[in-house]
Amino acid sequence: MAIKTNIDTNVQLPMPIAIIGTMFHGKANFSTVAWITRVNSVPPMIGFAISKNSLTANAVLINKEYSVNIPHKNQIREADYVGMVSARSADKSEVFDFNFGDQKKSPIIENSPLNMECKLIEKIELPSNWWIVGEITSVWCDPNVLTNDIPDYNKMKGLIITMPDNKYRLIGKAFADAWKVKKL
Amino acid sequence: MAIKTNIDTNVQLPMPIAIIGTMFHGKANFSTVAWITRVNSVPPMIGFAISKNSLTANAVLINKEYSVNIPHKNQIREADYVGMVSARSADKSEVFDFNFGDQKKSPIIENSPLNMECKLIEKIELPSNWWIVGEITSVWCDPNVLTNDIPDYNKMKGLIITMPDNKYRLIGKAFADAWKVKKL
Repeated sequence: MAIKTNIDTNVQLPMPIAIIGTMFHGKANFSTVAWITRVNSVPPMIGFAISKNSLTANAVLINKEYSVNIPHKNQIREADYVGMVSARSADKSEVFDFNFGDQKKSPIIENSPLNMECKLIEKIELPSNWWIVGEITSVWCDPNVLTNDIPDYNKMKGLIITMPDNKYRLIGKAFADAWKVKKL
Repeated sequence: MAIKTNIDTNVQLPMPIAIIGTMFHGKANFSTVAWITRVNSVPPMIGFAISKNSLTANAVLINKEYSVNIPHKNQIREADYVGMVSARSADKSEVFDFNFGDQKKSPIIENSPLNMECKLIEKIELPSNWWIVGEITSVWCDPNVLTNDIPDYNKMKGLIITMPDNKYRLIGKAFADAWKVKKL
């Protein structure tokens, strides 16, 4: 039996960890986000929420392009750090080795199993965050994490975060197939 | 070393499973989504993507309110079904026992560990989907899944879905604390 619960509580869903890569004043900048999801299939689009105060938000709005990088479990300390610390107070350009793909202002993190280059398509200004929607223009992937030529999050050892316990996790074991039940 | 990968491939992140509850032509309607995330902290807002063809999208835009229900692992068949089958071809109003909270057109699923009532705040029209942003106006929760008065996804036995393998999973075990690394 459900009870009404305080809505001030931080009602959260488990979310994947991604690192947004931008260029700001000529320097690479990285910021970790978790409020991120695909939003459209064709063309492929992805959206994420980010604080309006962040330099990353500013850079995305100015440059109209950015990268979305999925860190490997081994990059957990760096991912946590670039989500905690602002580029205003620390130079985050040397945290990761990075490269460029097709876009000039979208640094992609080396050693991350999956990198997506994105172009800004839409935005919504919310009370504290921007909601940013981008089209995925290219995908770079460690060939070792492909299954049938498709990036496989399980092989990537990508992270999920749960709140309010504020824990990093991997995904659990698969136990059922999706999109099977056509009749009850 | 990363290689450029076909961007037609379905690059996906692991996502939580939620069921949107609406009223359409006087009947309760339920539709499963996975492209869903919190988007703003204060006030609490959540966003999700849904096909522009779906009756649920129509109902949300007309009613300007809806529920977001987190199904328990035990509701996996029903959750899969209401994500597969359109209300155009089957009556989905009897799949779940439901109730109403504070809103008149936002049926909340009984026996789901967490239900959120939402009011439509913003929308973006994308090529195939609407991106819907709502404010969470009330939260209903099974008291057995609270930890320190906050809904706990681990106790809820909420599902995540991975693609392209199309598998349901639970979240993995916690192995590290988030938001700790202030210096590298």
